[in-house]
Amino acid sequence: MMSKWQYSTPGIPDQLFIRGQVPMTKEEVRCVTISKLRLDENSTVYDIGAGTGSLSIEAALIAKQGQVWAIEREAEGVQLIEENRAQFALDNLEVVAGEAPAALSDLPPVDRVLIGGSGGQLAEILELVEQKLKAQGRIVINAITLETLTSAKEELLRLGYQIEVVTLNVARTREVGAYHMFKAENPIYIISGERSLEDDS
Amino acid sequence: MMSKWQYSTPGIPDQLFIRGQVPMTKEEVRCVTISKLRLDENSTVYDIGAGTGSLSIEAALIAKQGQVWAIEREAEGVQLIEENRAQFALDNLEVVAGEAPAALSDLPPVDRVLIGGSGGQLAEILELVEQKLKAQGRIVINAITLETLTSAKEELLRLGYQIEVVTLNVARTREVGAYHMFKAENPIYIISGERSLEDDS
Amino acid sequence: MMSKWQYSTPGIPDQLFIRGQVPMTKEEVRCVTISKLRLDENSTVYDIGAGTGSLSIEAALIAKQGQVWAIEREAEGVQLIEENRAQFALDNLEVVAGEAPAALSDLPPVDRVLIGGSGGQLAEILELVEQKLKAQGRIVINAITLETLTSAKEELLRLGYQIEVVTLNVARTREVGAYHMFKAENPIYIISGERSLEDDS
Amino acid sequence: MMSKWQYSTPGIPDQLFIRGQVPMTKEEVRCVTISKLRLDENSTVYDIGAGTGSLSIEAALIAKQGQVWAIEREAEGVQLIEENRAQFALDNLEVVAGEAPAALSDLPPVDRVLIGGSGGQLAEILELVEQKLKAQGRIVINAITLETLTSAKEELLRLGYQIEVVTLNVARTREVGAYHMFKAENPIYIISGERSLEDDS
Repeated sequence: MMSKWQYSTPGIPDQLFIRGQVPMTKEEVRCVTISKLRLDENSTVYDIGAGTGSLSIEAALIAKQGQVWAIEREAEGVQLIEENRAQFALDNLEVVAGEAPAALSDLPPVDRVLIGGSGGQLAEILELVEQKLKAQGRIVINAITLETLTSAKEELLRLGYQIEVVTLNVARTREVGAYHMFKAENPIYIISGERSLEDDS
Repeated sequence: MMSKWQYSTPGIPDQLFIRGQVPMTKEEVRCVTISKLRLDENSTVYDIGAGTGSLSIEAALIAKQGQVWAIEREAEGVQLIEENRAQFALDNLEVVAGEAPAALSDLPPVDRVLIGGSGGQLAEILELVEQKLKAQGRIVINAITLETLTSAKEELLRLGYQIEVVTLNVARTREVGAYHMFKAENPIYIISGERSLEDDS
Repeated sequence: MMSKWQYSTPGIPDQLFIRGQVPMTKEEVRCVTISKLRLDENSTVYDIGAGTGSLSIEAALIAKQGQVWAIEREAEGVQLIEENRAQFALDNLEVVAGEAPAALSDLPPVDRVLIGGSGGQLAEILELVEQKLKAQGRIVINAITLETLTSAKEELLRLGYQIEVVTLNVARTREVGAYHMFKAENPIYIISGERSLEDDS
Repeated sequence: MMSKWQYSTPGIPDQLFIRGQVPMTKEEVRCVTISKLRLDENSTVYDIGAGTGSLSIEAALIAKQGQVWAIEREAEGVQLIEENRAQFALDNLEVVAGEAPAALSDLPPVDRVLIGGSGGQLAEILELVEQKLKAQGRIVINAITLETLTSAKEELLRLGYQIEVVTLNVARTREVGAYHMFKAENPIYIISGERSLEDDS
């Protein structure tokens, strides 16, 4: 018999996270988002606008020998990330309370940057990330608004990245009596950028 | 600088697989499908109707100390799985040429069962899986037809599983001149079954 | 300058209906559903499980010289349909308070049948519809559950209809400050049946 | 028995149009697009980038006493629109061979503007439309690329329109032997603009 699941793959069930009132990226979207980061066990990662920290947790579970910095400006989020970090017993995840890009300035360079929330500062964040992201680095941006989608695409192209844009529409069934009713999650756009897509292999 | 990517997460880019003319599950769908299997590094897995073997490869990369059996009835598929296995240098993936359920009868019990194609034999396959799947096991079925969706749901419920049904609609942009045109992948239904969803945590 | 809009096409804006607490089919789905009915100005229609009556209203606006019967078992729905009928000043829409199939038995034969809700009686309803639907008739069923989708498809095929199944995933942006956030409607399946698709032209 | 269908609602089946090699807007998308135009029987309409003319035909069938101008720069498209106009026996549809905005300059003002293709000239087209669209007018833009989506939203807001953005993901089943396989249409964005959404009622 298998022992308790070791979270070997991203897409950890939503109910395993402490959530509070902060909106959380759903498991299927987390799964694909983390996949697009192309993490390894030594990866170093910023998770900007970390919210509940669910993506930071997923990243830290893959980058076991690496390091994840979760940047979050809201006190409730910072508290939730700490609680989730304790629950998943991770010592390679550090919470940075503050607002990007300022909160990034003292952090060391990284291999990967994940942007789940940018507080209207996406262009400024990406400017600073230019100095922090290593040569073979990747950026993944999750957008739930038309403005972030547009801005993510335009800024990444302007900075010379090759981009991929993927939309996910996820629905799941919910039991209502003897019925399984389809219930939609909101659409999400996942924009990935890297210097050269060929290096991906 | 990071070394070559170690495929630490599922959702390996489509272009890294040898494909031939056999339809292949796209990377975002592979990612979520593998996630729903809740694999660990010791997991043992059947991949029934393995096609190009892309899902078998993904499973074998996670279940490093485990074992994956890829069952496939078409000669072209069997050949592609062997080629992909060689390319990814996996020794924990075995190809079983033949048709389920018959082809499963001599295989040892497993922790996880993935069904990507059932050749119209889904009920019969699930009957045999009943004898092969271990107590804490999980089944994940990918359906691209209404009939498989219906049958997967009905058979799993009849056999006493708790189920989850998720639909994914994925679209990606394709560059056409200076434009990024949205291009849809076909919808997929991912049906997961386990004896008790509570054991998942 | 144009005068007040005459509702010449289906897909009337949601906010023009009186809704109460009853869930209402959204305008894009109403538009496509009514389109699949292939109504003419003389059409006679049952709208079974009419809810707020929004689809009945749309049908009655097209079938100006025809007649629509809105069948609804819930008192709140019956009241809403009456209010909407008054608001749109329609005299070719009759509300039938009661449960299908029983509530249909005294109604005259019709050209078109729309089923938005069947209270678990879809097979029985379709049996009675067999006696009521005219030779060149069409049936359109809206399904929001897996069970209704399955049952609609199976029953229509069993009764000898040619079917078409269409899924709609609609999302719309909502203004949140300076942002346009994508918000999904739940998926819907629209199953159309007719004796011979060729007669459609 | 009903006589031949009179095309009383938009969403005319795809196979009723002459198509050639020109891509055609699918029936569900046509249906919703025409609905968003809020046409009446007296409406006057430009259909810019008319392609096969399928949307022009739909508009002309609703605006029976009005007039539709189909603007199309490709010779193959112009020919197809003429053929479709003949097939649907419409005398309120005029084909304008040429490229917008130049091709619009001699046309009279209209109530409605539909933009299905803008050849990279969306901003310029909307500038001219400013002089041509009547006070209570509406603009509907269909976008299949990220660039057109972005540009449509930004230009309409800049010109003072209130906007609505709707995404449609349509899939339909296709018979493959005894199976009904889901097949996706590409996503489409429908952007509607009007001077004041309140006037809509």
